[in-house]
Amino acid sequence: MGMTMTQKILADHAGRKYVEAGELIKVKLDIVMGNDITTAVAIPEFNNTGASEVFDKEKVVIVLDHFTPNKDIKAAEQCKVCREFAYEKDIVHFYDVGDVGIEHVILPEKGIVAPGEVIIGADSHTCTYGALGAFSTGIGSTDMAVGMATGEAWFKVPSAIKFNLTGSLSKHVSGKDVILHIIGMIGVDGALYQSMEFTGDGIKSLSMDDRFTIANMAIEAGAKNGIFPFDEQTKDYIDIHSTKPYKIYEADEDANYEKIYNINLSSIRPTIAFPHLPENTVTIDEADEIEIDQVVIGSCTNGRLSDMKITADILRGKKVNKRVRTIIIPGSQKVYLECIKAGYAEDFINAGAIFSMPTCGPCLGGHMGILASKERCISTTNRNFVGRMGHVESEVYLASPAVAAASAIAGKLIDPAKLKEA
Amino acid sequence: MGMTMTQKILADHAGRKYVEAGELIKVKLDIVMGNDITTAVAIPEFNNTGASEVFDKEKVVIVLDHFTPNKDIKAAEQCKVCREFAYEKDIVHFYDVGDVGIEHVILPEKGIVAPGEVIIGADSHTCTYGALGAFSTGIGSTDMAVGMATGEAWFKVPSAIKFNLTGSLSKHVSGKDVILHIIGMIGVDGALYQSMEFTGDGIKSLSMDDRFTIANMAIEAGAKNGIFPFDEQTKDYIDIHSTKPYKIYEADEDANYEKIYNINLSSIRPTIAFPHLPENTVTIDEADEIEIDQVVIGSCTNGRLSDMKITADILRGKKVNKRVRTIIIPGSQKVYLECIKAGYAEDFINAGAIFSMPTCGPCLGGHMGILASKERCISTTNRNFVGRMGHVESEVYLASPAVAAASAIAGKLIDPAKLKEA
Repeated sequence: MGMTMTQKILADHAGRKYVEAGELIKVKLDIVMGNDITTAVAIPEFNNTGASEVFDKEKVVIVLDHFTPNKDIKAAEQCKVCREFAYEKDIVHFYDVGDVGIEHVILPEKGIVAPGEVIIGADSHTCTYGALGAFSTGIGSTDMAVGMATGEAWFKVPSAIKFNLTGSLSKHVSGKDVILHIIGMIGVDGALYQSMEFTGDGIKSLSMDDRFTIANMAIEAGAKNGIFPFDEQTKDYIDIHSTKPYKIYEADEDANYEKIYNINLSSIRPTIAFPHLPENTVTIDEADEIEIDQVVIGSCTNGRLSDMKITADILRGKKVNKRVRTIIIPGSQKVYLECIKAGYAEDFINAGAIFSMPTCGPCLGGHMGILASKERCISTTNRNFVGRMGHVESEVYLASPAVAAASAIAGKLIDPAKLKEA
Repeated sequence: MGMTMTQKILADHAGRKYVEAGELIKVKLDIVMGNDITTAVAIPEFNNTGASEVFDKEKVVIVLDHFTPNKDIKAAEQCKVCREFAYEKDIVHFYDVGDVGIEHVILPEKGIVAPGEVIIGADSHTCTYGALGAFSTGIGSTDMAVGMATGEAWFKVPSAIKFNLTGSLSKHVSGKDVILHIIGMIGVDGALYQSMEFTGDGIKSLSMDDRFTIANMAIEAGAKNGIFPFDEQTKDYIDIHSTKPYKIYEADEDANYEKIYNINLSSIRPTIAFPHLPENTVTIDEADEIEIDQVVIGSCTNGRLSDMKITADILRGKKVNKRVRTIIIPGSQKVYLECIKAGYAEDFINAGAIFSMPTCGPCLGGHMGILASKERCISTTNRNFVGRMGHVESEVYLASPAVAAASAIAGKLIDPAKLKEA
């Protein structure tokens, strides 16, 4: 029996020729990552291990992105703990206000993660880097602490589901619609502790940003990781962003998959996850007309330059509905700067949106757009759980940047294709 | 006995030919203003008055600037209360996320306030509009409620102190240094319930932005208001920004002033207010070398385009100290947009600063840069009270944008003139 792409990466990092699903193995880590919330929790645990130094100063990454710029005294104290640790341990990849972005946007952008690596991060959406052909997964703060101390982690080798993609996406449809479609199909526990391996001819039509978005939300189907094969686009991305050596892994032809789904990308419609679960999806054609109070475009899921471009292309020359607070948040200082240079920032402001500095912001109810009771938000973020973005009686509708931007103008959930020309 | 400029405005709005200091008078209001915090408190009081409508839909101004974009659920609920009131009462000047800025920056910028008016605002720094030759003062939420209902307010006519300004400011010295110098000289209760009337040949050398900054901080000397005479510069500003009719008032030659200070602007040095009072001033030449953790440039005191230009001119082509979080916050969407068009936004980001959307933010400990214990911040804001920007053991040093920007680069309090060329 052959191995999946994920299994081959794990076997190699465990010093083994072969592993099979269900085995418990210890693997060497290429990157251990945490943010301001989780690192602050991991540091006392790290100290409990007795380690005086981190296993490798270049392989530990700390990003202060969640509640920054410090939203309150508690956030300030958490960041201070992280900052002091980072300077004391001489962490090379420490990102503070001014050189920061959302962790899952900046790690690829700064070339810190590479294909074939094993990456753990104390954040659920660490699975994002599977877009580059890495094994990447979210862990808790204790695993982060031990990872920082030893450079190793234990894993149960995951079994896998194959998503065989064909065709290509229609206008106004993007990676977000693909992953929402899949989660709607298989459910929020549809890939529990499994690898979601994306494959097929359709992949070449997906941009790297589409792939980041898809891999990012693998966790929302319960998956251990999501992963894409390395192709020409991956190579182009890595050539531009990283100087790290890397290794390419391919699934064996006789790898075992517990399920195989065939998905024709051209059949996917703009898809929205209604409250209060990402699996609660409908296509824009089936969706009720929902009046909204706020739109958020950003996050580790959809805060990249292509997301900003889609948004700018829709908002340009138009005005958002006066009653819709439209909050656009780039994923990094680099994306922010590129938005300014490309004129998107002016498009956003002229349309009556606000354009924030990079932060995770309202996605997890942090700051920068928290909802009051009964308020409704269309958001390009990744979770729409009860109270995720504020009051327990608020509602979050997950959508693509195209749907979110069009809806900001219309004041209600709308198909971007149906938005009238200005 | 003649009247001061302030007394003449008040007399006219009371339907009187003459008023004298100490009298209690009822005056007609041209503008009644509140923000997200104070309006939310004023609304139940307004309802208690029995009024069903505000006295004039064009004369009530509500600006959601303090804890926005909503920093938490409480802020979200406060904004919601304001928003529902504004729409129900059909308030013409209601400014929400997307068309918002800091109240004291946008009211002049949008031409909502004009020379000779009587303006009350439920915010301490409402005295800012004295720069335009208006009587403008901060009041509590109850006075705001009654003002919204009746269009009137009671005042004790203030006595006055005259500040006779001569000369002109040196390089790297601006309005902020002037007002800090004055507060250092007379103390935080040096003008208690008095008018600070600025006059003299030196005024013509002060830009409108300098005047806004000076009038803005009159309250920090305990003053009821600060006021500047109407001159060519005022006229130019009003011609560009406002279409409102206005009236010019001048102090009588025999007006009574309790004190007169003569200040040669050319003798003023960059001035810093050390913790924990605005009167605790030293010049940059006397100041100790203070290491800092954060710099904030913005607020109703120094968030205007000229402040952004000063900052950009210092940061351009340089890098802020790696350990100094440098947070730059424009005062309005208009200032933000102008910063983008002028290239300042790129200068800020390239220097390693963050550039926020407009908000009051950290000034009053709201969000967007709250301090942890023992942290020190140089800030262009207006108050450095204990715990004002976060933890009670944090410290705020008030300074001009020039001093703040130079210090961000140096990592410590520094004279902009001593910053080495890159």
